[in-house]
Amino acid sequence: MRAEIIATGTELLSGGVLDTNSLFLSEELMLLGIETAFKTVVGDDEKDMEEALQRSLARVSVVIVTGGIGPTEDDITRKVVAKIVKKRMVLNEDALKAIHTRLTGRDYGTTNDRQALIPSGARLLQNPAGVAPGFFIDESELFIAVLPGVPKEMRAMFSEGLKPVLAERFANRMFIRRRLVRTCGMSESAVNQAIQDTLKRDIPVVGLTVKETGGVDIRIIAREPNADQAQTQVDRTEATIRGKLGDAVYGVDGRELEEVVGALLMQRRLKLAVAESCTGGLIGGRITSIAGSSEYFERGVVVYSNSAKTEMLGVPLDLIERHGAVSSEVAAAMASGIQKAARTDLGLAVTGIAGPSGGTEQKPVGLVFVALSTAQGVKTAEYRFLGDREQVRLRASQMALDMVRRHLIA
Amino acid sequence: MRAEIIATGTELLSGGVLDTNSLFLSEELMLLGIETAFKTVVGDDEKDMEEALQRSLARVSVVIVTGGIGPTEDDITRKVVAKIVKKRMVLNEDALKAIHTRLTGRDYGTTNDRQALIPSGARLLQNPAGVAPGFFIDESELFIAVLPGVPKEMRAMFSEGLKPVLAERFANRMFIRRRLVRTCGMSESAVNQAIQDTLKRDIPVVGLTVKETGGVDIRIIAREPNADQAQTQVDRTEATIRGKLGDAVYGVDGRELEEVVGALLMQRRLKLAVAESCTGGLIGGRITSIAGSSEYFERGVVVYSNSAKTEMLGVPLDLIERHGAVSSEVAAAMASGIQKAARTDLGLAVTGIAGPSGGTEQKPVGLVFVALSTAQGVKTAEYRFLGDREQVRLRASQMALDMVRRHLIA
Repeated sequence: MRAEIIATGTELLSGGVLDTNSLFLSEELMLLGIETAFKTVVGDDEKDMEEALQRSLARVSVVIVTGGIGPTEDDITRKVVAKIVKKRMVLNEDALKAIHTRLTGRDYGTTNDRQALIPSGARLLQNPAGVAPGFFIDESELFIAVLPGVPKEMRAMFSEGLKPVLAERFANRMFIRRRLVRTCGMSESAVNQAIQDTLKRDIPVVGLTVKETGGVDIRIIAREPNADQAQTQVDRTEATIRGKLGDAVYGVDGRELEEVVGALLMQRRLKLAVAESCTGGLIGGRITSIAGSSEYFERGVVVYSNSAKTEMLGVPLDLIERHGAVSSEVAAAMASGIQKAARTDLGLAVTGIAGPSGGTEQKPVGLVFVALSTAQGVKTAEYRFLGDREQVRLRASQMALDMVRRHLIA
Repeated sequence: MRAEIIATGTELLSGGVLDTNSLFLSEELMLLGIETAFKTVVGDDEKDMEEALQRSLARVSVVIVTGGIGPTEDDITRKVVAKIVKKRMVLNEDALKAIHTRLTGRDYGTTNDRQALIPSGARLLQNPAGVAPGFFIDESELFIAVLPGVPKEMRAMFSEGLKPVLAERFANRMFIRRRLVRTCGMSESAVNQAIQDTLKRDIPVVGLTVKETGGVDIRIIAREPNADQAQTQVDRTEATIRGKLGDAVYGVDGRELEEVVGALLMQRRLKLAVAESCTGGLIGGRITSIAGSSEYFERGVVVYSNSAKTEMLGVPLDLIERHGAVSSEVAAAMASGIQKAARTDLGLAVTGIAGPSGGTEQKPVGLVFVALSTAQGVKTAEYRFLGDREQVRLRASQMALDMVRRHLIA
């Protein structure tokens, strides 16, 4: 069972905007056992859209179109689909009712009614998160669904409306199960070496991706006629990988390191404070991106200047003068300084040279010291990251969070 | 002149990876007067790739393929292109030499030589940033170029090799010039109202996009047979828009608000310190993402707890008790507190409710207070942002940076 995802919208061709909907859709289709064979982006041009649709119907069995179903003149998707499948457009009463309900009390342009026109024979997909309804056409050799372009609306409509339809329509096919095993602190070649036997096997498929954070993600994809079998394969392979990589694995799938660290702190009822130099607030920003982080994040400081380090953290000025602001000693003093000032269980600190300038032969761009102060004392670590300013900062924040994680699970 | 960009690679279909190359390419093609009509993504499957290539040659005049030209078994792009254009593969000596030079002293697998095979009649494109060479075929009714999938290599090869070829081949066509005028602090409908006359005109094309930061970007695209004429149109339209929107315009094209604020601070030799609550380090992170920010960013604090607000910023505990931590009064005290502690020219502070929990009827999720303390006193502003935690935080950081910008240009 193969699918094509067609994203419509001129802004996706030349407006500097990327189609991200297809990322979500191909993932969801995969879990239903439907493989995405093509993705196409086409502008709001009638001829081009016709061409793309016609082509997709000739080469795959499931076509999902996103975008172009709003109320304005350039929203032509409904019309073009009707033309291609040779149906006339009819006014759907349920759709009209939903649009009216949604827009009650708002500025109601008459063009909004146009959104209730769908091809005859098509079935309506209500929009749980917006106005424009979608629809799908299900005939013997043809399955075509039309969803909104706004990601939030597209996702809601897919999950609540289209997904159950697809699951039923394409049941008893291959089941695909997938897992991402996420690691931190090991290089790609080290991960490769450690799990090479698993990588060599064909079933399930296992692959590596190096992330911007410097961490390595391991993809496991199992494809079986039986869902349980596929799941068992994934679970077993994950267990094998975890056995080989140990603490380097911090989580699976969409779970980010800041979530893992947050959950550990919450569970152990510990509080954290952070002192950042080169990361400039990035670590605080990542920790506090998690809802409920006020339970365990007490405070953070961004100490860019030496006087800030001295005044706010009590780092002795002569320590900075002796070892330099970017040094293991200053990192340690920053960590114990913030822990003491905030009276928290843990004090985390980072100092380094993010670049592009400021590096020397002795202390090159990418040199970063991380320190963690706890009741058991202060640990420090030294890193030399490759990459540009953004990468160095991101990688430094990752290793700093990882130091907290490793301390908490030790 | 219309183009199709074909990205190859199974990881772009189901590996959770987005094709970002086409964003760069469509932009570059546009500047050469070539419009991208279709973007296609296809896996490392011979039949599918043949189908996609064949289709593209039938519907546009310029085809650019990225990816699948490395040394491994699943790198099949070269072979498929040769088949579609009915050429045999020949070993290109220049390509072979370049590959050998590049890999001198490294682990040299024999499969690397395969990368020097290109279709007969094709012209070589050297890879300035990697190993795999690219090529292009230029015949009367056919122009097809093949570039690497690695973004850095693709960009270097395009800019140094393919761009001059395209510029010459498709000279004397239409020239496209483009500008993004970026605004902050005005809603989409307010921008729409203010520049409606400009939006209505067809030449140049003007459109609006609402960004995640809450700001509105205005796209200007001029398409003329003469490059100067296109540029003049863009410049004039930008001037008109700036005239209507005034200070709401903070920059153009890729320039972000943190860069604008940084440049203003640098120019005026002023120093800034920041106290954040709900944004949790995001503002510090954005400011310090700019190289050289240590010149004007003195320090930042993330004061999540009340005791942090009191101890680090001297915010009186009874002020917090009287008005709540999320209040105009506390924001003002935080701003003057950080300004005083850091002895900087400006003290910026944010306090708010990012959600999803913590909101009340009186103080709902999305309520944010921003304050700026300067020699002239303290300014505060109140916002009620819509959206999830991430959006509220991002929008709050944007309006906070904008308050600094507006103060500096006043």
